[in-house]
Amino acid sequence: MQLGMIGLGRMGGNMAKRIAEAGIEVVGYDRSPASDRTVDSLEALVRALDAPRIVWVMVPAGEATDVTVNALAELLEPGDMVIDGGNSRYTDDARHAAQLEGKGIRFMDCGVSGGVWGIDRGYALMAGGSKEDFATTRPVFEALKPEGDSGLVLAGPVGGGHFAKMVHNGIEYGMMQAFGEGFATMVRSELVEDPAAVMSSWRDGSVVQSWLLDLLAIAFRTDPTLESMPPVANESGEAKWMIEAALELGVPTPATAAALYSRQTSRGGADDILRVVSTMRAQFGGHVTKVDEIATH
Amino acid sequence: MQLGMIGLGRMGGNMAKRIAEAGIEVVGYDRSPASDRTVDSLEALVRALDAPRIVWVMVPAGEATDVTVNALAELLEPGDMVIDGGNSRYTDDARHAAQLEGKGIRFMDCGVSGGVWGIDRGYALMAGGSKEDFATTRPVFEALKPEGDSGLVLAGPVGGGHFAKMVHNGIEYGMMQAFGEGFATMVRSELVEDPAAVMSSWRDGSVVQSWLLDLLAIAFRTDPTLESMPPVANESGEAKWMIEAALELGVPTPATAAALYSRQTSRGGADDILRVVSTMRAQFGGHVTKVDEIATH
Amino acid sequence: MQLGMIGLGRMGGNMAKRIAEAGIEVVGYDRSPASDRTVDSLEALVRALDAPRIVWVMVPAGEATDVTVNALAELLEPGDMVIDGGNSRYTDDARHAAQLEGKGIRFMDCGVSGGVWGIDRGYALMAGGSKEDFATTRPVFEALKPEGDSGLVLAGPVGGGHFAKMVHNGIEYGMMQAFGEGFATMVRSELVEDPAAVMSSWRDGSVVQSWLLDLLAIAFRTDPTLESMPPVANESGEAKWMIEAALELGVPTPATAAALYSRQTSRGGADDILRVVSTMRAQFGGHVTKVDEIATH
Amino acid sequence: MQLGMIGLGRMGGNMAKRIAEAGIEVVGYDRSPASDRTVDSLEALVRALDAPRIVWVMVPAGEATDVTVNALAELLEPGDMVIDGGNSRYTDDARHAAQLEGKGIRFMDCGVSGGVWGIDRGYALMAGGSKEDFATTRPVFEALKPEGDSGLVLAGPVGGGHFAKMVHNGIEYGMMQAFGEGFATMVRSELVEDPAAVMSSWRDGSVVQSWLLDLLAIAFRTDPTLESMPPVANESGEAKWMIEAALELGVPTPATAAALYSRQTSRGGADDILRVVSTMRAQFGGHVTKVDEIATH
Repeated sequence: MQLGMIGLGRMGGNMAKRIAEAGIEVVGYDRSPASDRTVDSLEALVRALDAPRIVWVMVPAGEATDVTVNALAELLEPGDMVIDGGNSRYTDDARHAAQLEGKGIRFMDCGVSGGVWGIDRGYALMAGGSKEDFATTRPVFEALKPEGDSGLVLAGPVGGGHFAKMVHNGIEYGMMQAFGEGFATMVRSELVEDPAAVMSSWRDGSVVQSWLLDLLAIAFRTDPTLESMPPVANESGEAKWMIEAALELGVPTPATAAALYSRQTSRGGADDILRVVSTMRAQFGGHVTKVDEIATH
Repeated sequence: MQLGMIGLGRMGGNMAKRIAEAGIEVVGYDRSPASDRTVDSLEALVRALDAPRIVWVMVPAGEATDVTVNALAELLEPGDMVIDGGNSRYTDDARHAAQLEGKGIRFMDCGVSGGVWGIDRGYALMAGGSKEDFATTRPVFEALKPEGDSGLVLAGPVGGGHFAKMVHNGIEYGMMQAFGEGFATMVRSELVEDPAAVMSSWRDGSVVQSWLLDLLAIAFRTDPTLESMPPVANESGEAKWMIEAALELGVPTPATAAALYSRQTSRGGADDILRVVSTMRAQFGGHVTKVDEIATH
Repeated sequence: MQLGMIGLGRMGGNMAKRIAEAGIEVVGYDRSPASDRTVDSLEALVRALDAPRIVWVMVPAGEATDVTVNALAELLEPGDMVIDGGNSRYTDDARHAAQLEGKGIRFMDCGVSGGVWGIDRGYALMAGGSKEDFATTRPVFEALKPEGDSGLVLAGPVGGGHFAKMVHNGIEYGMMQAFGEGFATMVRSELVEDPAAVMSSWRDGSVVQSWLLDLLAIAFRTDPTLESMPPVANESGEAKWMIEAALELGVPTPATAAALYSRQTSRGGADDILRVVSTMRAQFGGHVTKVDEIATH
Repeated sequence: MQLGMIGLGRMGGNMAKRIAEAGIEVVGYDRSPASDRTVDSLEALVRALDAPRIVWVMVPAGEATDVTVNALAELLEPGDMVIDGGNSRYTDDARHAAQLEGKGIRFMDCGVSGGVWGIDRGYALMAGGSKEDFATTRPVFEALKPEGDSGLVLAGPVGGGHFAKMVHNGIEYGMMQAFGEGFATMVRSELVEDPAAVMSSWRDGSVVQSWLLDLLAIAFRTDPTLESMPPVANESGEAKWMIEAALELGVPTPATAAALYSRQTSRGGADDILRVVSTMRAQFGGHVTKVDEIATH
């Protein structure tokens, strides 16, 4: 079996290695010459694979994925298969599928979780597409997934894989926020001497036992107060998309929203809100927020 | 009629003037000699009033109010009346009432809203105490309240006035946050050219017509972007107490909590949460939050 | 001056009357024969107006507005003007404007606030479009707006009017939720005897003075406990769109979201969340949620 | 070594067994004769233990724990030790410690996590007290804790154990809510065919891997839609206390609050909020929420 892998960054590169170790021949391409690529163009990648081809796209969501799908629509042949394994918004999938279907090319989407640990631990995979296509491509998924019964699911038709991954990441946001709220509360209390030690102790026997907690415990070993980390967090899109999808479906997601809002606030998103609040306070009460007043609070 | 007013700051001083203008003789005391005080000690204040006395306490909530009530418990006579018009937590009222009742002294609490505008506009008053005591002290409340049918209520027994004022302030927090969220959303949109002009236009005919909006419109005249105001807001306690009271009563108050959390976050309250979130992200995904990455976002 | 009004329901019908009272000739059409319509077809409406025509569309957002704009694109002439005064999502406006521009027809959008009270009180208007078009159509806006300096604004280019109205409604959601949280907290407290009386008293002198509070006080006269109202609230779309727009702009809107989520929850939106929570509790703790246990809580 | 265990319910009974299996002699008492008790009174329990005694209290928080501590204060001797392992609020601990210290009796608090699974899996333990007392009682903790490096911590001085447990449970609330929000979003989407299968697949390789997810997957085996579970969740106190503690410390906990509010809402806590919202809507817009309108939405 052969697989074309487009995108050999932190995720794609590791995944290519894991697939190759399972005995599948991987032809890799990345636009960066510095990468570990097998071929130096998409054309060469297509030529290097026997039809019917399976090409896994692992490039940034949005424009880069659009550009890649556009190119593959021209280069591939009827019966070939494109799998978008990047973090595309689920709403992109139907569009990509329709575009490729016009050329007789099949399409699947696949959400991939696991981060830098996946190469050893395996990747949790959520696929979207037909049962037939899933059966055809299954060896690739089996190569990537972790050992054990879990870690791979056909979530639904095209779009279902990215929808499931989006929800997975939304849950991840909520879990991380929950751990953060607990840590921050303990940090300010005089009753808990070493919040990092307390949280690390929960790794066995507790209800909050989880892989995220394991990771946090690793970080605590070198920085138990986390003071080396700036109090700012970025966001990658999925939680935002999940909140929007849920809004349209009539499902309230307040914890997920709280997690995203916390990150947006850390990047200045609430600044104008606070200006309004302090302006009103200054008007009605003679309350003034001064920088030195703040400093000495 | 006579009234002793203890505390002649921004609120107490203005209130004393409004009461005096209604024809009630006001004896004022403040611990600061720089104030417009009539007498220079609590003892002198008590001596200057004929029994049965009415003494209005208008000092900061917490320790200052406790100290004043303690002193009055010693100085006043059975049949006298203490009204706590400060921003005390409602849970303090039963304690103060019991302490004074032991000496035969009556007690009422009163929430006062109106800020620096109250001297002209009148103060909204929420009293707590018995109907009998409310009848006795009513001329003082009538002097303070605005013209019109509204603006004065006996909210309930002792504690009810401060409970109602706490809820009033919680609602105020939510309203201010709502206006802030709307303004901030418009500021970032290219479709709205002058958010201040839009919000000012809502002063007539709209559903969000309100005194807070009027105040905001005044501020917009000199600073339509509010950029002169730092993106930080303080809190004064009542919203926090309301959220806690509601939690114990089983009532969810997510909008009030959102408003308070926004202010606490602006003062660094969420910093440790974000450190946890970014630490976990760095661990599982190789995501790193760098200061320069943030700056160029 | 003439105006064509399409849609003579609760809003459009009242607006047509207010415009007519200002001396503008109104030709009204509604698809319902039971309405107070002047003409019985869109064709007749167009014929009844002299070019260049101004046609105000006041029909439900979404499909009904699309259908109407489609029809007007065929019926109107270059130089005519369409104003969408309905509750369209701001993202529809650019599409409608482009569609009409292809035929030389001008387009404005206008958010309208005021509800059933607007016919007497006037409507708060937020227009979107060019300054030129705003100048041309201004008499219509002047007829609709309330007396006083406020109540009318050109918020920005096409889409700006509906964006501003969307934000206005989002704020309205937050304010209503804030009042609701305050009322609910007082209802459960033994310290407040009559929450309706307390809230009604805030109509003068308080910081939360507002038109919404005035309306609530009217309702309290006949139902001080509101027990006749079911604990369920619908939503009309704008708050959801504002939250989504803000998410994309990086602005956290937790109070607006809390207000919307409260309504979605009241319609069953959180049911599956609670099933997960109770299932997990049952698994780890032997906690079981039984209906009779709930009943006696 | 000996241990007195007071309270032999679901938690205490299992813990007593686990301690006994570690070779510690356990004298058990429960007020219910139906329990597996060794002795039939607190007096008998004290008599059956050699001084210095260690007595573990595992009864419901609040009154039952107060009553037990009161009784032990009379029955125990100087040098004896009481460990409160129940779900007491951390603020009770200082009071209990002071009460016992007056008699020369030592006190520790211990948060215990693990539920019905703890007897086999071990219990995560968070102790509060002095290092000296922790050293003395350590064999008991070692008997209860899981195998492995984690699962036991001295969180801080008296009160620290229950504070840590409170935070643990607050985090647990947030995690459960996050999983619930994800499940509910997938249930309403047409793109995910079997949300239970998707979530179960995350047990290996995903970022949200956790014990709670394992438990949920077990439940999904017999009820993949969870429709047998009513959409109502109870609360046990700790999350509420954590939110209150955090409020006082200036730490925003929006995800934890969202989780608690969701449960309070499911028990009718938001009903009066919704009545206010719908009342206002009915007033300004002629919007009316009718039961049949709701049913057909």
